[in-house]
Amino acid sequence: MNIGFIGLGAMGRGMAQQLLEAGHEVTVWNRSPEASEALAEQGAKVAKKPADAARHEVLVSMLADDQAAHQVLVESKAVEAMKKGSVHINMATVSVAFARGMAALHDRLGVAYIAAPVLGRPDVAAAGKLNIIAAGDPAQIERVRPVLDAMGQAVWPLGESPERANVAKIAANFMLATAIESMAEASTLTRAYGIEASDFLDVVTNTLFASPAYQGYGKMIADARFEPAGFTMRLGHKDVGLALRAGDEQHVALPLGSAVRDRLLDALAHGDGEKDWSGLAEVAARQAHLDKR
Amino acid sequence: MNIGFIGLGAMGRGMAQQLLEAGHEVTVWNRSPEASEALAEQGAKVAKKPADAARHEVLVSMLADDQAAHQVLVESKAVEAMKKGSVHINMATVSVAFARGMAALHDRLGVAYIAAPVLGRPDVAAAGKLNIIAAGDPAQIERVRPVLDAMGQAVWPLGESPERANVAKIAANFMLATAIESMAEASTLTRAYGIEASDFLDVVTNTLFASPAYQGYGKMIADARFEPAGFTMRLGHKDVGLALRAGDEQHVALPLGSAVRDRLLDALAHGDGEKDWSGLAEVAARQAHLDKR
Amino acid sequence: MNIGFIGLGAMGRGMAQQLLEAGHEVTVWNRSPEASEALAEQGAKVAKKPADAARHEVLVSMLADDQAAHQVLVESKAVEAMKKGSVHINMATVSVAFARGMAALHDRLGVAYIAAPVLGRPDVAAAGKLNIIAAGDPAQIERVRPVLDAMGQAVWPLGESPERANVAKIAANFMLATAIESMAEASTLTRAYGIEASDFLDVVTNTLFASPAYQGYGKMIADARFEPAGFTMRLGHKDVGLALRAGDEQHVALPLGSAVRDRLLDALAHGDGEKDWSGLAEVAARQAHLDKR
Amino acid sequence: MNIGFIGLGAMGRGMAQQLLEAGHEVTVWNRSPEASEALAEQGAKVAKKPADAARHEVLVSMLADDQAAHQVLVESKAVEAMKKGSVHINMATVSVAFARGMAALHDRLGVAYIAAPVLGRPDVAAAGKLNIIAAGDPAQIERVRPVLDAMGQAVWPLGESPERANVAKIAANFMLATAIESMAEASTLTRAYGIEASDFLDVVTNTLFASPAYQGYGKMIADARFEPAGFTMRLGHKDVGLALRAGDEQHVALPLGSAVRDRLLDALAHGDGEKDWSGLAEVAARQAHLDKR
Repeated sequence: MNIGFIGLGAMGRGMAQQLLEAGHEVTVWNRSPEASEALAEQGAKVAKKPADAARHEVLVSMLADDQAAHQVLVESKAVEAMKKGSVHINMATVSVAFARGMAALHDRLGVAYIAAPVLGRPDVAAAGKLNIIAAGDPAQIERVRPVLDAMGQAVWPLGESPERANVAKIAANFMLATAIESMAEASTLTRAYGIEASDFLDVVTNTLFASPAYQGYGKMIADARFEPAGFTMRLGHKDVGLALRAGDEQHVALPLGSAVRDRLLDALAHGDGEKDWSGLAEVAARQAHLDKR
Repeated sequence: MNIGFIGLGAMGRGMAQQLLEAGHEVTVWNRSPEASEALAEQGAKVAKKPADAARHEVLVSMLADDQAAHQVLVESKAVEAMKKGSVHINMATVSVAFARGMAALHDRLGVAYIAAPVLGRPDVAAAGKLNIIAAGDPAQIERVRPVLDAMGQAVWPLGESPERANVAKIAANFMLATAIESMAEASTLTRAYGIEASDFLDVVTNTLFASPAYQGYGKMIADARFEPAGFTMRLGHKDVGLALRAGDEQHVALPLGSAVRDRLLDALAHGDGEKDWSGLAEVAARQAHLDKR
Repeated sequence: MNIGFIGLGAMGRGMAQQLLEAGHEVTVWNRSPEASEALAEQGAKVAKKPADAARHEVLVSMLADDQAAHQVLVESKAVEAMKKGSVHINMATVSVAFARGMAALHDRLGVAYIAAPVLGRPDVAAAGKLNIIAAGDPAQIERVRPVLDAMGQAVWPLGESPERANVAKIAANFMLATAIESMAEASTLTRAYGIEASDFLDVVTNTLFASPAYQGYGKMIADARFEPAGFTMRLGHKDVGLALRAGDEQHVALPLGSAVRDRLLDALAHGDGEKDWSGLAEVAARQAHLDKR
Repeated sequence: MNIGFIGLGAMGRGMAQQLLEAGHEVTVWNRSPEASEALAEQGAKVAKKPADAARHEVLVSMLADDQAAHQVLVESKAVEAMKKGSVHINMATVSVAFARGMAALHDRLGVAYIAAPVLGRPDVAAAGKLNIIAAGDPAQIERVRPVLDAMGQAVWPLGESPERANVAKIAANFMLATAIESMAEASTLTRAYGIEASDFLDVVTNTLFASPAYQGYGKMIADARFEPAGFTMRLGHKDVGLALRAGDEQHVALPLGSAVRDRLLDALAHGDGEKDWSGLAEVAARQAHLDKR
């Protein structure tokens, strides 16, 4: 298909590359031009401005957060430049409120809008193995199937209302945060009784919790290596904040979310915003004074 | 080997059976005699009192909690009846304080003491596939290897101090509790936005959290079937309490543990102590008034 | 002095009246005209639009929240209508971010800006006995002293940066919320042991906590009368949210704030947004199932 | 009256002195004899062992905690030595479970038992101005009125069941803990915005919270002087633990209690167990990294 692609960060570049490899015609735009150039060598066209990337049958966008999405897609008039009958697949992790506003805006403009946030890190994106949570008009999701299939190993449909995909993604990240904090607390407790973190985490991540998330973050905690970050404290704080806000709006308390948020704040206060969020184990150890005893 | 086995509850009977099948000579004792009789048909001898089961080369005990272990092993004089040089493998989930007291008692009596709590439900026990966390004198653990191997698929050694095995088991159960509560909160949040719990949990337990614990409890939450219980709220409350107490003693805060405890109390207050602890999803829904809206 | 007064809600009308009684010349504006008319009978002039009230030596505003303040003061161009050298006393409880934006806006327009939120309920406002927390240029605060003195029994200066007064007011309301929740939890605990809430609260609010806040809210809890509300759950939720956001921005965790927020969400979920926030005692009782046992 | 008095710690010695000054005949016992000797100079008789102090019409005891009370009153056979028809006034802060056990024991021995824990610090005890929370047989409370009146400014009766007085005292201390933590969090928040803790606390403890508890602890926080302690972190941790346990037993969650407990654990982990519990302000500042920024 004829695809515009906006946002070539760590995730986006791998996803755009998969689209090229699947034989789609892709026009890319990125704030800093280096990423575009790299893809141009692989066959992508390079748009001069967001609106130029938006004038295709399908627009895929993968931006960092509400603010970036607002600037690059709305303020730049990219969305307004889309043709009637085309479809926008927004794959960013954005707030529920923003998702709702975007759905209304596209509706007004006569453009289909699919929210399709993803589960998976940059290496998974580069391998085309993402899990894609999708919500929007089912007929439109079917229409762009080839696009989604090129980027992901599976598509998980969650109904017609786009915001549902976003809230599910936010809830999944909330669960990741609590899983990490759970390992942080449990390994601090067992360390206080003389057990090496690696010994304890070895047991649980090979038995009850033998899943990618626990094993990946468990290894970082066991090795006490929190840099380079896969996903930063800063972003973790942002995403747990999105979950708390989504809960607030619908009067759903998330006590585990509040507890994790407070620990993330401790990390940010100590200047660790760019460390991996598995560094929550450091916060737990510091509060228990195990960092120095 | 010549083995005494005390405690034929849902877990113990499967474990004792595995010992028989592996060709060991087993003398059993249980408070209610029915369980002993069933094993007698499979070749076990039946002891008249705990002390009679304790007079063997190896004593294995699998009792419900501190109180039961104290009554059946200590007050009954079973431990005192053990022969010098024999070894006691205590597989119950007990408190750190109790574990410490038991270690000291056995030391005084000249009997080896191994703490060997297990991960796994009754069906896993019956299949001889438990994961066994073991701590105690390594030479003694080696000596009883055939016994442990008959009951488990793997032995996870955690050093010489028996209490370490207990604190690791307590920490693992704490992690289970937080994982369930995390699913409870996340599925309540997504339900508030119109997503069926089964649809959301389908995504996460087949991607990020594709592990036995999440899948088993996730299914109970998705189906809203909390009876019959695999592990009750009452026991969950007891175990989270053990974790909080273990943390308290070493000045390690477990904020997630406190949050789960409060939700478990809500369940107990509402008379749901005998429901499965995945019923935490009901508590989350009730507090968000999603049970009736 | 020649004063414009915007916002004649439950608080504002009493404050404006005190200004009239102190002999100031007051021009009022309010969204619904009834409140203005009542004050006109006491000698106030009535402005046709916010900007007309803003063209005086001193502008006092008392609006409900960020949104109301933004609409009535900024969007309406009232602030822009102020004369150079005049001074605006904003007495509303607004967010830190909004306070910061207002300070910058006034600075740009050459108008002095004093943030002066108040402690006290409508009856206290009507009696001119408010406690006024003030921040801004000290010379300007001195200049408007007669205005502040007419409305309050004391002025508490907190430095030059206006946002400080707002964060102090937010922190004071946070403390109120925790005091109420503390009474809610303690009286639920003692009720579970058969002590009437009134008996327990009688002890503590006449000894350790013999202060207006505890005695006022303690009486509502003891009587289980949460309507009519002095301060609603909805507003309490808003204000605790302001505290959490202010903390978030500076990386200061407020664990008590998160705990209270979750209880307020339970109240809102159950349709109790317009009850007095001392109704937190009902939430505590409901979670402990004391409402029905 | 003829009174035995056991336990001459910081609180007990002032209380015993008041009894002497009121003209009662007092026989004292204390673990370390110095305290007894000081009172002997004021007219007290000195008992050689607890049982000797117990053989009077009225026994008053004021011991540190469950453990001390158990050793000195039960193990020493002091309670057994009491005469039928005499009455024991236990003024210590003990757990609900211990209170219940004591009530049953006295009942069996035919001795009246009044639980009468107090609100007030040593200086208040020395002045005879304690607030006394009393529960037990009303006729017996009336009988010992002169004794209670000599030690306190007011007696607050809470019914026949002695444990009620203890749970009320525990709940009152829980409220103190939350009040201190609330000041700790609020003053940390305002400090992060550049407001001196003393300036903020000055406002709130002279307006909304103008009560002894807030003013006393507020001053310690404002001055950042946490030694010498009026009431230590260690004791605060013990008392909040009693509240959580009392809640646990009756299925009443105390979310504020859990939050404070975690902060107290941070203090204990950092070696601050003997500081005053208003030092919770240091914990809040440390977690927000305000101790060093």
